Amino acid sequence: MSEDTVMQLPKVDPSEKSMDEIVALCKRRGFVYPASEIYGGINGFWDYGPLGALLKNNIRDHWWKRMVECPPIGPDGDPLQIVGLDSSIIQNPRTWEASGHVAGFNDPMSTCKQCKKLLRADHVLSMLHSAPWVTAVNETSPGTDGADNDTISAFAGSNRARKVAPGLVDALKENPSHVAIVANAAQRVAAGDQSETFVAACPHCGGELTEPRAFNLMFESHAGAIKDEANKVYLRPETAQGIFLNYKNVVDTMRVKVPFGVAQIGKAFRNEVTPRNFIFRSREFEQMEMEWFCHPDEAAKWYEFWKNERMDWWKSLGIDEANLRFRDHDDDELAHYSKMCVDVEYRYPFTGGNFGELEGIAHRGCFDLTQHQEHSGKDQSYFDQELQVRMQNEGKSKEEIKEASRYIPNVIEPASGLTRAVLVLLCEAFTPTPDRSGSKYVLSFKPKFAPIKAGIFPLVAKDGMPEVAQKLYYDLREKFTCEYDVKQSIGRRYARMDEIGTPYCFTIDGDTLTDQTVTVRERDTASQQRINISQVEAFLRENIG
Amino acid sequence: MSEDTVMQLPKVDPSEKSMDEIVALCKRRGFVYPASEIYGGINGFWDYGPLGALLKNNIRDHWWKRMVECPPIGPDGDPLQIVGLDSSIIQNPRTWEASGHVAGFNDPMSTCKQCKKLLRADHVLSMLHSAPWVTAVNETSPGTDGADNDTISAFAGSNRARKVAPGLVDALKENPSHVAIVANAAQRVAAGDQSETFVAACPHCGGELTEPRAFNLMFESHAGAIKDEANKVYLRPETAQGIFLNYKNVVDTMRVKVPFGVAQIGKAFRNEVTPRNFIFRSREFEQMEMEWFCHPDEAAKWYEFWKNERMDWWKSLGIDEANLRFRDHDDDELAHYSKMCVDVEYRYPFTGGNFGELEGIAHRGCFDLTQHQEHSGKDQSYFDQELQVRMQNEGKSKEEIKEASRYIPNVIEPASGLTRAVLVLLCEAFTPTPDRSGSKYVLSFKPKFAPIKAGIFPLVAKDGMPEVAQKLYYDLREKFTCEYDVKQSIGRRYARMDEIGTPYCFTIDGDTLTDQTVTVRERDTASQQRINISQVEAFLRENIG
Repeated sequence: MSEDTVMQLPKVDPSEKSMDEIVALCKRRGFVYPASEIYGGINGFWDYGPLGALLKNNIRDHWWKRMVECPPIGPDGDPLQIVGLDSSIIQNPRTWEASGHVAGFNDPMSTCKQCKKLLRADHVLSMLHSAPWVTAVNETSPGTDGADNDTISAFAGSNRARKVAPGLVDALKENPSHVAIVANAAQRVAAGDQSETFVAACPHCGGELTEPRAFNLMFESHAGAIKDEANKVYLRPETAQGIFLNYKNVVDTMRVKVPFGVAQIGKAFRNEVTPRNFIFRSREFEQMEMEWFCHPDEAAKWYEFWKNERMDWWKSLGIDEANLRFRDHDDDELAHYSKMCVDVEYRYPFTGGNFGELEGIAHRGCFDLTQHQEHSGKDQSYFDQELQVRMQNEGKSKEEIKEASRYIPNVIEPASGLTRAVLVLLCEAFTPTPDRSGSKYVLSFKPKFAPIKAGIFPLVAKDGMPEVAQKLYYDLREKFTCEYDVKQSIGRRYARMDEIGTPYCFTIDGDTLTDQTVTVRERDTASQQRINISQVEAFLRENIG
Repeated sequence: MSEDTVMQLPKVDPSEKSMDEIVALCKRRGFVYPASEIYGGINGFWDYGPLGALLKNNIRDHWWKRMVECPPIGPDGDPLQIVGLDSSIIQNPRTWEASGHVAGFNDPMSTCKQCKKLLRADHVLSMLHSAPWVTAVNETSPGTDGADNDTISAFAGSNRARKVAPGLVDALKENPSHVAIVANAAQRVAAGDQSETFVAACPHCGGELTEPRAFNLMFESHAGAIKDEANKVYLRPETAQGIFLNYKNVVDTMRVKVPFGVAQIGKAFRNEVTPRNFIFRSREFEQMEMEWFCHPDEAAKWYEFWKNERMDWWKSLGIDEANLRFRDHDDDELAHYSKMCVDVEYRYPFTGGNFGELEGIAHRGCFDLTQHQEHSGKDQSYFDQELQVRMQNEGKSKEEIKEASRYIPNVIEPASGLTRAVLVLLCEAFTPTPDRSGSKYVLSFKPKFAPIKAGIFPLVAKDGMPEVAQKLYYDLREKFTCEYDVKQSIGRRYARMDEIGTPYCFTIDGDTLTDQTVTVRERDTASQQRINISQVEAFLRENIG
């Protein structure tokens, strides 16, 4: 390797990465397109382009392999039993009554009385931080504590207010006491309050927001010809319930014994009031969920096991440890079904250096199976034959054994978003490279997850080079996703590969024709070395894994 | 290989396979469960169990590999350019106005005036063939031509009619001329008429059906908080439109030139009035579609190319050629967007020896892109630089070149159902084996598509055999989906593997401990041979591919 050409890829802190640039690169390079873009888009929906689909498949396959095909080794040294599943998005609607989603899966929502926009009440304060009118009103304030009532009243009479906060002007006319709400908003922003506290000031226009009311997040539809209550169905808001519905089927038809897991990957839908942050919170997304059914006495042990296992998995994607952490849920933020929950968090560029949710590992107790047992009238208990034998050997009484050996399992659930994992790998890999002559950005994916593993280029489109390159492409493409490209200068071809995250390029030049060597060009360092063309496959196998 | 133990797997004609047995085996062995079974199910929805999910993934990956990662070699010897995509299920609703689905994606539907059941008008006659009341009324008929008016009137007065055809009895009271309709039904059934002709007699109760009316097959929902017309959205009835929406994005961001393809796999939804034949016609299903964009003058050539390519692909799944055929669509059955269409058909067990639809290869012309151009106002034309250069070299005039080098591409679309492919592989593999001592059925999948590639069994759970078997399992599981099983007699373990279609089992016994050989037991022949344990991986690699 010629040392003089080796660059170091700069290490950029997530807080210094620009979401706008990431979104633009994703569009420009075929990772993520806004859905229905030719019709002006549709809020909360995204399409995965050619490279985004490959990246997503790589993550999907890695999760499935580590869950279903090669499950982790358990604490006793044996491999865990986990089977896969692919259940329907639409299920019998009683599913969602039992799960609590019909009654309880709500977001607090508020409407602006002036501009009529709908908002998530718990997102208002964070939106006020970037609202131009808040900036404007605080700029007219003499101190740094944020505007007070008088400052706001004065501001409301200005031309600037008419422009940036028309709702504020109108609201004050209709209800002079709105001034106190606005002052509260301005002062909380000045103090850096990033909490979910509801403040009744519209981030868009400064108008007055209604009291929050509950809004169910499930998409509704009708199955069958008549659009009536009897035919109402829901698009699943989580894949998990499809697993609970089939728990008994799996126990009866597969040779699994508690503890065991059922894993599935699939789409879920949530009618978010304010979809935001690119593909972080969209209305249609893809989940990877596993339900681990275990004896209630062992649930705490398995909760710890899965917590660590899942963190290891995220690290295996090549994410810097410094950008990952655990956060235990406080009691008051636990979902209705949850006894304990911990989030794996990531430092997204849009959280300003703070951590945000990536995966939740929840101790769901026996909530879901018990609910389905009650609502369906179908016994969901498990008969633990091994426990029975053990207790018999221990000389326990028949009654004791009978009572203990039949139970409803507890559930530990590692639940993550596949589409959110795509976002994290894109954010983590995104590296501006202003000092490179070719590419403005490098996507430094861990090679295993790169959409394209190798670029194969004839230096020029003549002298027999294309034929040699194409033969190499044919030999490799069955084993690695690779791309053959003959057009443009070699520098521009490398630059494009940097921007889509291809770890290695192999260039066939004049020397190849005489000594059978090719140039290997590495993405992160832009370094080049020559190897024999017969070793390219072994090189990739070693470096990609 | 000891010849005396080799059995021949009987070759069973599809028409002799029982769908009821196939459905039961699928449930019992974890391939397909009815969705929401504990709540009494939900009509038209199915869940893929642990083995069904693996089988489906194997087919999915094979299609994706042959389309996106290693596209076929084209007629000129170069590999085709095809990129992948994963677009949203919910798109801007104007998509479906442009595509014609809002106005034209309808099924003819009829209601029974007596029992109120809803039916697909074009399915009525085929349902009458298995209606108990038709059998009953024809049994009372003196000849073999089916009942006439008098026979039916006599039948209607019987106790049997009250039981099996209460609707017929009531309908005749209300409208005596219904007798002619019923006679028509009975006679068509007697004559074996399997057409889609509408006959206004209810297959369930013999009552009178209403005139068919159009029923739109798209599931509707609302995105956003307000359930009004402005927020109405649809679940996609085909994945194809997501590709057309992104055609321009792909051209602009990927280095593709016409001709090129965009392929995607994903769920689609059709609110079928009468879902039927297991997973053949369900309301939620999975498609594999590829849109091939080409010059209008070359569309006919590519239509032929894809027709042959797709038939080869189906054969590569291990389907007997005798059970596959092409069927060209007549002009009057072409969809509104289609200029030519050919179906790949399969002899399903439920079609009584006849062929039924498996995949459609359609010449869609420039219909979709033109519609989207008109509805979105966004130019969907393609500038063909290579054509321009060629025409310049040919000395064509500037005007001629300008006119010819910008055009809206034509589209050839091979569109198949992934879930339907699962059904075909299950039907094809399903083989009753009444003469075997162990398994009642064998699923003789081509090894590459079997959900589990190898069973690894210690003969008994002692004497160090489990340890040797588990080590083999660990060595293999990274490369092949395999299962370790130590419970039950070896015969029962083999039988279970036969029923789930596992092509090879490796048994570790006493000899293994001394001479390092294991027994390889083959599924279809039940033959056994011994090989060295170190050769198991190579054996699988050779036999599975």
